[in-house]
Amino acid sequence: MKNELRDHNLKALFLGSKGENVDLFKELLLKMIDEHVGWRQNYQPQDLPVITPQDKSSKSFLETADHVRSVLNVLSSKLRTNSLPWHTAGRFWGHMNSETLMPSIIAYTTAMLWNGNNVAYESSPGTSQMEEEVGHEFAALMGYKKGESWGHICADGSIANLEGLWYARNMKSLPLAIKEVAPEFVAGKTEWELLNMSTEEILDILDQIPEKIDEVKEHSARSGKHLQKLGKWLIPQTKHYSWLKAADIIGVGLDCVEAIDVDDHYRMDISKLEAKIRELAAQEIPVLGVVGVIGTTEEGQVDRIDKMVELRDKLAEEGIYYYIHVDAAYGGYARAIFLDENNNFIDYAKMSEVHEKFNVFTEKNEWLTEDIYHSFKAMSEAETITIDPHKMGYIPYSAGGIVVKDTRMRDVISYFATYVFEKGADIPALLGAYMLEGSKAGATAAAVWTAHKVLPLNVTGYGKLIGASIEGAYRFYHFLQGKQFKVGDKTINVYPLTKPDFNMVDYVFNEEGNTDLEKMNKLNHDFYEQASYVKGGLYNNEFITSHTDFAIPDYGNSPLPYVQSLGFSKEEWDREGKVTILRACALSPYAYDKGVFEEYASKIEQAIQEKLEKVYAVVN
Amino acid sequence: MKNELRDHNLKALFLGSKGENVDLFKELLLKMIDEHVGWRQNYQPQDLPVITPQDKSSKSFLETADHVRSVLNVLSSKLRTNSLPWHTAGRFWGHMNSETLMPSIIAYTTAMLWNGNNVAYESSPGTSQMEEEVGHEFAALMGYKKGESWGHICADGSIANLEGLWYARNMKSLPLAIKEVAPEFVAGKTEWELLNMSTEEILDILDQIPEKIDEVKEHSARSGKHLQKLGKWLIPQTKHYSWLKAADIIGVGLDCVEAIDVDDHYRMDISKLEAKIRELAAQEIPVLGVVGVIGTTEEGQVDRIDKMVELRDKLAEEGIYYYIHVDAAYGGYARAIFLDENNNFIDYAKMSEVHEKFNVFTEKNEWLTEDIYHSFKAMSEAETITIDPHKMGYIPYSAGGIVVKDTRMRDVISYFATYVFEKGADIPALLGAYMLEGSKAGATAAAVWTAHKVLPLNVTGYGKLIGASIEGAYRFYHFLQGKQFKVGDKTINVYPLTKPDFNMVDYVFNEEGNTDLEKMNKLNHDFYEQASYVKGGLYNNEFITSHTDFAIPDYGNSPLPYVQSLGFSKEEWDREGKVTILRACALSPYAYDKGVFEEYASKIEQAIQEKLEKVYAVVN
Ligand SMILES: [Mg+2]
Repeated sequence: MKNELRDHNLKALFLGSKGENVDLFKELLLKMIDEHVGWRQNYQPQDLPVITPQDKSSKSFLETADHVRSVLNVLSSKLRTNSLPWHTAGRFWGHMNSETLMPSIIAYTTAMLWNGNNVAYESSPGTSQMEEEVGHEFAALMGYKKGESWGHICADGSIANLEGLWYARNMKSLPLAIKEVAPEFVAGKTEWELLNMSTEEILDILDQIPEKIDEVKEHSARSGKHLQKLGKWLIPQTKHYSWLKAADIIGVGLDCVEAIDVDDHYRMDISKLEAKIRELAAQEIPVLGVVGVIGTTEEGQVDRIDKMVELRDKLAEEGIYYYIHVDAAYGGYARAIFLDENNNFIDYAKMSEVHEKFNVFTEKNEWLTEDIYHSFKAMSEAETITIDPHKMGYIPYSAGGIVVKDTRMRDVISYFATYVFEKGADIPALLGAYMLEGSKAGATAAAVWTAHKVLPLNVTGYGKLIGASIEGAYRFYHFLQGKQFKVGDKTINVYPLTKPDFNMVDYVFNEEGNTDLEKMNKLNHDFYEQASYVKGGLYNNEFITSHTDFAIPDYGNSPLPYVQSLGFSKEEWDREGKVTILRACALSPYAYDKGVFEEYASKIEQAIQEKLEKVYAVVN
Repeated sequence: MKNELRDHNLKALFLGSKGENVDLFKELLLKMIDEHVGWRQNYQPQDLPVITPQDKSSKSFLETADHVRSVLNVLSSKLRTNSLPWHTAGRFWGHMNSETLMPSIIAYTTAMLWNGNNVAYESSPGTSQMEEEVGHEFAALMGYKKGESWGHICADGSIANLEGLWYARNMKSLPLAIKEVAPEFVAGKTEWELLNMSTEEILDILDQIPEKIDEVKEHSARSGKHLQKLGKWLIPQTKHYSWLKAADIIGVGLDCVEAIDVDDHYRMDISKLEAKIRELAAQEIPVLGVVGVIGTTEEGQVDRIDKMVELRDKLAEEGIYYYIHVDAAYGGYARAIFLDENNNFIDYAKMSEVHEKFNVFTEKNEWLTEDIYHSFKAMSEAETITIDPHKMGYIPYSAGGIVVKDTRMRDVISYFATYVFEKGADIPALLGAYMLEGSKAGATAAAVWTAHKVLPLNVTGYGKLIGASIEGAYRFYHFLQGKQFKVGDKTINVYPLTKPDFNMVDYVFNEEGNTDLEKMNKLNHDFYEQASYVKGGLYNNEFITSHTDFAIPDYGNSPLPYVQSLGFSKEEWDREGKVTILRACALSPYAYDKGVFEEYASKIEQAIQEKLEKVYAVVN
């Protein structure tokens, strides 16, 4: 199926802020249901129905059906009472939910009727094929070489990150195992050298000893040995709790995690990274791996992956090597913005021209700097990458993914008894033996596959959707900049955190003249309570946002320049130790439109005004 | 919502072998969609639609909609070509898929429109509440104490088992951590004694030092320390690869896994378990934990959990303690068969009476022996239990679950920075900090919640559905017993493996007089190829089954009595080293019905005859 459509109309791809496309949604969904039911009917049409007309008019059937109706009434009521209106084109500026692609919702529902389980090819040939295809699409998106790379769908980004760390841990331990099993291949290497071999070197050795791979694996970290020798796992200072959890689960432990300071743009400070690695090397402590983040979930910031790769190349000459895992759970799909209609990475000089051709942005974009360009480009040098279809893929929860640069790594973590495999299969017969999870919905693969067919993973498809999202974020950012509210005799100013690296807009309210950080934090927390489920009445809430705290234990002093720019002293920061931030992930596929945004802007302003008045009425 | 319905008609709960309930399905689904769309429309009705009539008649919109139609046509074709017809009332006897509950499909689809993410309460109040409720329902199903226990939904059984092992590992290490942080609470204990403290003792100490819990946790296995001291993880000899993978991932390593022989009913041999524990104790090697299985996915066998608990009590007097994790991914829901309408565990003497009252079986059941009764009853003594809604819960993939006996254990693995929590919440604000995964579909919780409301987790609801499934399995088992086929001058006999412990029927074909095990294995594998996707034409296949190998590396000699009963010598077994088994998981909610089964029996017989003829035409 070749996708010849060049001008995807995003408005045809979502149910709509007001359910505008409900007719199209029902048309498509009912057609799929009918096709499924026709399939059931015509599988062995000589078999008669087992649920007879008499069954259907029996008392117990009718009572059971009414019982189901009652239960679904309760379900509907609960969902309508306690859900978030993120479908709105302009009133939900919270974290991290959005309208999802209508074709994917339909695909999920349809495939759910077949209920394939992608753990094993046998029980899900159709959706297993789709997952294999999606894996290759992910690999192409990341710039990995065709035929040498692989990817698969998983439960979510935490699981993908855990799997990445599992890969890193077992890869790193292999030279120690090779030394035990086939020492001639690492003859003369010190332990330090063994623990600084590149992923490619290691895999090249394994290629030469296929008959010994099982034994080498038995001696690797999977045995439970060597875990404390593998060195440090370096993550950004803003360390997301999921990385601590991952280090705990994978057994290397929290003590092996070291945080590298971020700069005042919340990106990993590469000079600090280098200093840390050299400090460790001086003690002969290796680096298990370095995590770069493409789109932090708190700030939307994009780490300098290119600089991480550059540093690795430089240190390699000194005999130091580290694995790179990119956590692009949030931002991975945005690499589509950099791929032309033939999936080639666009020259920086030609970006604007190509974007204009495919209407990626409606106005000149401020986001795409050279830094960001190079960060995305260098992703192809990482060993593993996490990507979440349920974030910027606009797929319903839960759909995560992991991409592996070198498909040979797959065998390093695989579990299989050869006798469970059918010969000649190009798709694993038992995918569960090659990944962290076991059973998993074929429907998820169908939903992601369908989305990728509707919107190609390049500038013509996802690039345009994500461009729209970023443009919406910038509209909100500019709306907030310099905004002032008057409540009684107080003046409340709005301060966005930083120019968004992506589609995340962080901001705070502060009372003019206030130099008490605790007071500002309370104002923003109180505002959040008015603009969230906390105060109840979610369905009547005219402006919804979310919040987070940047606190010293996680951020060190990186928020300090921002805090000082708001007029707080270093002493205030040290005393309070955190800054409470309001946080908007701008995912709406509608808010990029200038007319739409402007219509909502005045409503948002009014809603903020009312909330601030409530906060001050309550507080003072 | 009180469920007063006493006579659930199972036929009203499924779409139907021939889609018989498609009208009911559409009625319910469309009502839910309309209610969702009404909710979108009426959230701030002053906001106008952003997708206008003009948009909808624009060229690009129409082209995009047509493009979506084309993609969905391909999706539908792929699914119809490459899916398994497990919906059939009598032709799919494979592994492990089935018709799922129609109300859950509808609930999933509905909740997907809201796209809640249960990782955080803030983004999914409605479905987070449902998940909390489901967790308590799981706990009640397992006989855990109300208010002291907890459970949650997870991606699948592998993840739940991994989480169970994570709990066990970190719990086991706590006394070593307490010794470092608060030595006065374990004064005078040797390392052996520390590693043999009961879960309750450990938690009782932590209760006394709430201010030191974080520090204790820092010194626990999560730090990366102590992993190699914690002892052996004992699993049944039939060791499912997911347990090896789990030990690898969790860092204790494969070398810590020890397999305990199973008896010739494929249940863990408790005398061998005792011998192994004593052998380890003699070397001062502790037992990290013991895994009991309720419903092996290969044989459907139910381990003697009661005997594991009894042994633990006995050994406790000698200062030996082990954690028990029950892998009831497959069989967990079947505990509903033992709970009366008030969720009390039924006296063994009264089982038949209660079952008759609620029509759990249509004829006298052969399954429910006293052994099985006590195995299920004793589950309430295990620390953690895996239960998969997507197996015997008849929920679409993916929906796993874990249940925790003592809710205090939750804090032992939790990650949280106190400042991210709202005060006074009874549901975790960030569920992701208390479980292995992160983001996860609120829709899954809605699907499971709805199923539990439709079918209570006792003899009135799920008990009846699972009873039907077991009864179907026994019909198939009796159908196979003593069955003979004639192909040319050959006589082919059918031999079921053993009386099913649950709803799994394993069987083989053998040529009369054949004493060559390799030849029999080939016959069964060839038959499988005819009765699966392997030979293509899945949609025209009139009888579908699956297969597995019982091989010496995984099973030792436990299959030998069966193999010998078929006339093969011990030497044949040693030479071939495996027996290829055909495997049917009888999940159909229709085949329990005598009339239905008998109608299909002659069709199955005919289809088997034709397949055997093809096999012999090809082979000879
Ligand atoms: Mg707060």
